[in-house]
Amino acid sequence: MVFILNGPNLNLLGVREPELYGRDTLADIETSCRRLASELGLGIDFRQSNAEGDLIASIQEARAAGAGIIINPAGFTTTSVAILDALLTCGCPIVEVHLTNIHRRESFRTPSYVSLAANGVICGCGAQGYALALQHIAQLVERRAA
Amino acid sequence: MVFILNGPNLNLLGVREPELYGRDTLADIETSCRRLASELGLGIDFRQSNAEGDLIASIQEARAAGAGIIINPAGFTTTSVAILDALLTCGCPIVEVHLTNIHRRESFRTPSYVSLAANGVICGCGAQGYALALQHIAQLVERRAA
Amino acid sequence: MVFILNGPNLNLLGVREPELYGRDTLADIETSCRRLASELGLGIDFRQSNAEGDLIASIQEARAAGAGIIINPAGFTTTSVAILDALLTCGCPIVEVHLTNIHRRESFRTPSYVSLAANGVICGCGAQGYALALQHIAQLVERRAA
Amino acid sequence: MVFILNGPNLNLLGVREPELYGRDTLADIETSCRRLASELGLGIDFRQSNAEGDLIASIQEARAAGAGIIINPAGFTTTSVAILDALLTCGCPIVEVHLTNIHRRESFRTPSYVSLAANGVICGCGAQGYALALQHIAQLVERRAA
Amino acid sequence: MVFILNGPNLNLLGVREPELYGRDTLADIETSCRRLASELGLGIDFRQSNAEGDLIASIQEARAAGAGIIINPAGFTTTSVAILDALLTCGCPIVEVHLTNIHRRESFRTPSYVSLAANGVICGCGAQGYALALQHIAQLVERRAA
Amino acid sequence: MVFILNGPNLNLLGVREPELYGRDTLADIETSCRRLASELGLGIDFRQSNAEGDLIASIQEARAAGAGIIINPAGFTTTSVAILDALLTCGCPIVEVHLTNIHRRESFRTPSYVSLAANGVICGCGAQGYALALQHIAQLVERRAA
Amino acid sequence: MVFILNGPNLNLLGVREPELYGRDTLADIETSCRRLASELGLGIDFRQSNAEGDLIASIQEARAAGAGIIINPAGFTTTSVAILDALLTCGCPIVEVHLTNIHRRESFRTPSYVSLAANGVICGCGAQGYALALQHIAQLVERRAA
Amino acid sequence: MVFILNGPNLNLLGVREPELYGRDTLADIETSCRRLASELGLGIDFRQSNAEGDLIASIQEARAAGAGIIINPAGFTTTSVAILDALLTCGCPIVEVHLTNIHRRESFRTPSYVSLAANGVICGCGAQGYALALQHIAQLVERRAA
Amino acid sequence: MVFILNGPNLNLLGVREPELYGRDTLADIETSCRRLASELGLGIDFRQSNAEGDLIASIQEARAAGAGIIINPAGFTTTSVAILDALLTCGCPIVEVHLTNIHRRESFRTPSYVSLAANGVICGCGAQGYALALQHIAQLVERRAA
Amino acid sequence: MVFILNGPNLNLLGVREPELYGRDTLADIETSCRRLASELGLGIDFRQSNAEGDLIASIQEARAAGAGIIINPAGFTTTSVAILDALLTCGCPIVEVHLTNIHRRESFRTPSYVSLAANGVICGCGAQGYALALQHIAQLVERRAA
Amino acid sequence: MVFILNGPNLNLLGVREPELYGRDTLADIETSCRRLASELGLGIDFRQSNAEGDLIASIQEARAAGAGIIINPAGFTTTSVAILDALLTCGCPIVEVHLTNIHRRESFRTPSYVSLAANGVICGCGAQGYALALQHIAQLVERRAA
Amino acid sequence: MVFILNGPNLNLLGVREPELYGRDTLADIETSCRRLASELGLGIDFRQSNAEGDLIASIQEARAAGAGIIINPAGFTTTSVAILDALLTCGCPIVEVHLTNIHRRESFRTPSYVSLAANGVICGCGAQGYALALQHIAQLVERRAA
Repeated sequence: MVFILNGPNLNLLGVREPELYGRDTLADIETSCRRLASELGLGIDFRQSNAEGDLIASIQEARAAGAGIIINPAGFTTTSVAILDALLTCGCPIVEVHLTNIHRRESFRTPSYVSLAANGVICGCGAQGYALALQHIAQLVERRAA
Repeated sequence: MVFILNGPNLNLLGVREPELYGRDTLADIETSCRRLASELGLGIDFRQSNAEGDLIASIQEARAAGAGIIINPAGFTTTSVAILDALLTCGCPIVEVHLTNIHRRESFRTPSYVSLAANGVICGCGAQGYALALQHIAQLVERRAA
Repeated sequence: MVFILNGPNLNLLGVREPELYGRDTLADIETSCRRLASELGLGIDFRQSNAEGDLIASIQEARAAGAGIIINPAGFTTTSVAILDALLTCGCPIVEVHLTNIHRRESFRTPSYVSLAANGVICGCGAQGYALALQHIAQLVERRAA
Repeated sequence: MVFILNGPNLNLLGVREPELYGRDTLADIETSCRRLASELGLGIDFRQSNAEGDLIASIQEARAAGAGIIINPAGFTTTSVAILDALLTCGCPIVEVHLTNIHRRESFRTPSYVSLAANGVICGCGAQGYALALQHIAQLVERRAA
Repeated sequence: MVFILNGPNLNLLGVREPELYGRDTLADIETSCRRLASELGLGIDFRQSNAEGDLIASIQEARAAGAGIIINPAGFTTTSVAILDALLTCGCPIVEVHLTNIHRRESFRTPSYVSLAANGVICGCGAQGYALALQHIAQLVERRAA
Repeated sequence: MVFILNGPNLNLLGVREPELYGRDTLADIETSCRRLASELGLGIDFRQSNAEGDLIASIQEARAAGAGIIINPAGFTTTSVAILDALLTCGCPIVEVHLTNIHRRESFRTPSYVSLAANGVICGCGAQGYALALQHIAQLVERRAA
Repeated sequence: MVFILNGPNLNLLGVREPELYGRDTLADIETSCRRLASELGLGIDFRQSNAEGDLIASIQEARAAGAGIIINPAGFTTTSVAILDALLTCGCPIVEVHLTNIHRRESFRTPSYVSLAANGVICGCGAQGYALALQHIAQLVERRAA
Repeated sequence: MVFILNGPNLNLLGVREPELYGRDTLADIETSCRRLASELGLGIDFRQSNAEGDLIASIQEARAAGAGIIINPAGFTTTSVAILDALLTCGCPIVEVHLTNIHRRESFRTPSYVSLAANGVICGCGAQGYALALQHIAQLVERRAA
Repeated sequence: MVFILNGPNLNLLGVREPELYGRDTLADIETSCRRLASELGLGIDFRQSNAEGDLIASIQEARAAGAGIIINPAGFTTTSVAILDALLTCGCPIVEVHLTNIHRRESFRTPSYVSLAANGVICGCGAQGYALALQHIAQLVERRAA
Repeated sequence: MVFILNGPNLNLLGVREPELYGRDTLADIETSCRRLASELGLGIDFRQSNAEGDLIASIQEARAAGAGIIINPAGFTTTSVAILDALLTCGCPIVEVHLTNIHRRESFRTPSYVSLAANGVICGCGAQGYALALQHIAQLVERRAA
Repeated sequence: MVFILNGPNLNLLGVREPELYGRDTLADIETSCRRLASELGLGIDFRQSNAEGDLIASIQEARAAGAGIIINPAGFTTTSVAILDALLTCGCPIVEVHLTNIHRRESFRTPSYVSLAANGVICGCGAQGYALALQHIAQLVERRAA
Repeated sequence: MVFILNGPNLNLLGVREPELYGRDTLADIETSCRRLASELGLGIDFRQSNAEGDLIASIQEARAAGAGIIINPAGFTTTSVAILDALLTCGCPIVEVHLTNIHRRESFRTPSYVSLAANGVICGCGAQGYALALQHIAQLVERRAA
């Protein structure tokens, strides 16, 4: 099982600043994640929330389920120690995804708290970043199983 | 339509540190906003929340409605990239209001993320700041209509 | 009456990184707080939330009730001006508690907004920190009564 | 009486970078200020200077006259402690105005010395900012009279 | 055995800035520490010095005696690496105490070298802070004995 | 055609600090890259150098060939403006890869000059990171062709 | 037409710290500028002032005349946003000149506001710097004419 | 001959924030300076200006006259490199005076450019500071004469 | 009574780097202080110590005696919060003296903790600085008496 | 003899980001340098390298030949202490050239190590910068000969 | 004669954190220093103190004796300007020794004031560092004699 | 076997700024290293290069040979993460040598990347530093053999 968690404003994907974030909607991303996950033999739980507390609850759920986590923390990336702390309680594989290359944007978008808990970080690969993250989770899961 | 959004603890206005924030309650402010808005031919939707996620939801609602936004982000001013991101998805006029002159207070109250998305910023004018903001929104709306 | 407020992820206490946070669960802490409070002649209201907005609401409740506050802000310690602002509206005694000695951890855990509103700060004393905090609240309450 | 003081290069308003500063000339602004001031029952003294010393002299004049001050310090905003000191000698209402939202421009335009002495700060509202400032001065004057 | 070490100027307690440091003298604090220590079955060695070298010597003595240490480093808090180094040579429980909440004072009083060696840190609880520290030392001693 | 460029010390992969960098040798990585590239219908040119000048020359070659670039800049990540400048001359897709999650290592490993020119950045995914990068390059190439 | 503007204390050239600034007086520099300008077919207006306001007025004059500007801002280099703003209103070629290599002097002499508006910057070439600047202005003028 | 130069707003001395700057007017200070200077066998030229350019001109005059300089730069203390440069051209004794102890005020008042050129610096001694400065100038003049 | 306290290495005055600190010995300075103090009707207690603890003890003695304090903290200027704290316990006049102009020396010599407790600060006036300080103490004493 | 040394990626001049660096190729620049050098009676040795070690070797060669040096360090400007050290071993005239005005670009391009060893610095004058540098070298050579 | 001065807590060498500081006691180090010094024809005076004032006194003694100094300032390394000042009064050879490589420890252990006065600095060579330092002192002494 | 690696510009030793670096040539240093190494029963491989890539290759060679490393990184000290990374791959003893005391030079020469991988660091001992380093390597080798 992999929880794919999406932070604030990602529900507007496709319509929000498409020249920056691309034209895929979050539903499009969920669809392709489901397809790939099924090929990789993984179940997914795909969620979005604008509330930090909800994301923390989801991470705690993932922890209880022993699931892997793919997280696009969006606006919480550089501000939420609470999300970092939630991730640090998990022993599962974690991959952080950003649609854009945050290193080419405003400097306040760069230092990610989430990166301190993530195994891998993938940014700037657009919607495909989720697919790449899923592949890495699959490899990590497989290794732990081995 | 103008959304007037108020951040955390503003529900305590009038009773909370009145020597700093003044004696008007939030209800008082809403009343005078309604009166002025009606003079200006504008509808308003006046809200307060202590939760960042609720404010983001309200901003997204304003975006969908094509409304102008007046926002007093209070304690989220310097900490919420997520609110900034929500505002950046809007194409509408945005005015940021602070009751106090934040530049004369603790240094951590100064750098506003919200200012990066706002057209105008009005601070230190107390409750009247909302009225001034409404007038500026009215002018911006009129110009777009022109 | 004393509100004992616990921030994000503290519901996982005892299972989350026990080598760091100890093996007591939050329920264990509540139990011993109740016992001590009763000895001290104090009532307590013991809460935990992963949501900043809920904590703010609890602080406002405590304010209305004229209660003392013990708060372990956890992941919100260094990021929430909104919680600081809520605490600043209270005139009651406030003690900040951290299970671990935050000064020996990552540097981003150090500068606490909550400390700016607290009377006392107790950190690194583990679960006992709550008991120490209760004793200090009791003394402060007694003094105000005097 | 309200002194409306304009700093360096504002004499070029309307022709200087109009996409940034708008197409109103300083004379246009003076005209609408006069009209509004007269409605508010206030006299105004409207000045512009490229010289820091002249602006200080004007502030001292305003001080002697017990007048309110609206000041757009332009290029002196972040560099003139001397203007700040002049303003600090005044006991009258002071409102700072900037045509543009300085928080969205180069970082060296942000920290205003003038804000440390101002009651209110209005920026990014273009030429209308002067009108908003006049209204706030009027309210402050009225309150003092009360 | 617990060494209770007090840094520079604490001999003036009670007379020095009482609105800040309280009206208890150091002798008062020693008296109540002795009473509580005796209840807890602990011996104490209570000292004060204005000289960094003396405090280091006391810490080395405590180390040799295998005693616990409660230290109020006062003016040496943020400046003495030598005291930190002395504490780091000890394997015993260490609790740091400050009478005032140093986080609400000048910024140069905040970063404590002593905190890097302490188990617990208690500040802002006034003279009672020593009592709270003794209780924590007692618990730590008991645990080691267990 | 895709140039896969590896910076200093990567020739020691598999033997160098394997608990950090993994046990795959650079030859292993090249082999799996060739296999995947061939599946994706891409040719690859796989190189390693300890010399900044050689890497610049390779980037210029890639530029002349209109090839995509995958680059693991290793020790040059945070120090080479010259490599950044070389990449900026290219109009082709660029993906930066790091075997480890550099955000969890020493702070001097974090600010990457290369990221300023890269489309995507993948770090912490170990040897698989190269495969993920190849997939993203393939997608970017396809889009440009479209 | 080229305005050659000289900032504070440059009237003392030749007598002021000659080991640092050279033995040429400002009159000597004006003479050789006139000679070279005439060879290049350019008129010049050569001025010096110790007053920031005067320099701003001169820049505004140059702007009105559509003239090129060579400016040695001297002590105003790192402190005058107002001069920067005046230069930004000009669409003409601007070259900044410093007699000394400011990068080898005190660090507070380095970050030039004027450089943010200048086309070219020439420093450390002594009095000859003016001649080099004139040549560059001539080239820029010629290109615009072309 | 000693030039005693006073910066911006010092003409308001005695009336401006007297709890901070004292109740002596600048005329009072001039009077006592004249009396003391005459005792010390020194002539004085006592001036005040709100304009940086005027102060520079006065310093250049002092330089030409080979006079000593006592300067209270007031608001130009931390902002005027041009005044520093003017002072650096002088070979005469220079003493900097501040009425208040600038080290106990806002941090932006601390780093004085003028101090980099001054022989002595006297601050926080109120109006008497001028007298102390005169004595030091007298000693320096005497030594040079010796 | 005035305590004149001299910090570490000042016992070497006259022989230690005389080009920097002058050729007067500390005994010379004491002699002229005694002469001037006697003229001013003040007794003095003149001391030097290389030990921070001794200086603190002397300050506490001065406090008990209600004496004024002139202190040249030398090497403790920028490092001793404990001396600052001792001075803050005193209600008497305090003047800080430095032989050299510390603002023209290494940057680590600049931010003085002692200045935060001093009334006046006199630096760069050499041995005469003590005499100037005595005069200021005399004035402060006289005023308090008044 | 003058060595004209060009750093990394300058071999791409004319084709690389021409809107930024201009359309002249390095060969064009060499041609005009040769022409001007010959007029000035100077020989030139014109080189480019992408390797820091080669540039150091060239500087050492120039040193041995007693030649002047014009250097465009390009990407090594802000990163190479080794090139600075090589230049510091030379006693010859050194002029640093940048095609663009680096002060208007990314902040990491500003602090030049090379400037610490250069006599003059010319930036933002495009290809003409080399010609201006040659003239300055010629003047410096002439002066040394005088 | 060579003074070998050891700072605070070095008396605990061999027992204090031996995995960090090694198992040699200070007596062991003194013994081998005496042996080597005797081979080199040098007398030594070997001391340790936990008190800054004592170390300053020892340095002043060394100065009077014209002796060389080897100093391991331990905890005073980064905090004592007073020790630096004492060393600056000496004209003799000075070598600074640290048992551990301070550059691989906490960042606050790095910037040594003592290094600003030392000829050579040897760190991370354990107890042998003293022997290496003695050899360097011997060479320096010999050279001065030559 | 010990590799003695010398960084850029050290080939100019003896002729380059001899007042700073001494009059010994690199050949002189090699000769005395050979003599001492032979006494210590060690072989040496003595190299110098101006190219970072060559130094990395040499370090990798040393690693393969299991040799100790003495490295004077010269201009690469503070800029080369790649050399640090090469050294981190080695398990052998490493000593860093600088001829001058880098702590008394420009601040940019201080923070050494190489120190993060070195066992010992010796600076400011001139050419003798190499001999001291060899002795420490010999001791470390001996200990590992033991």
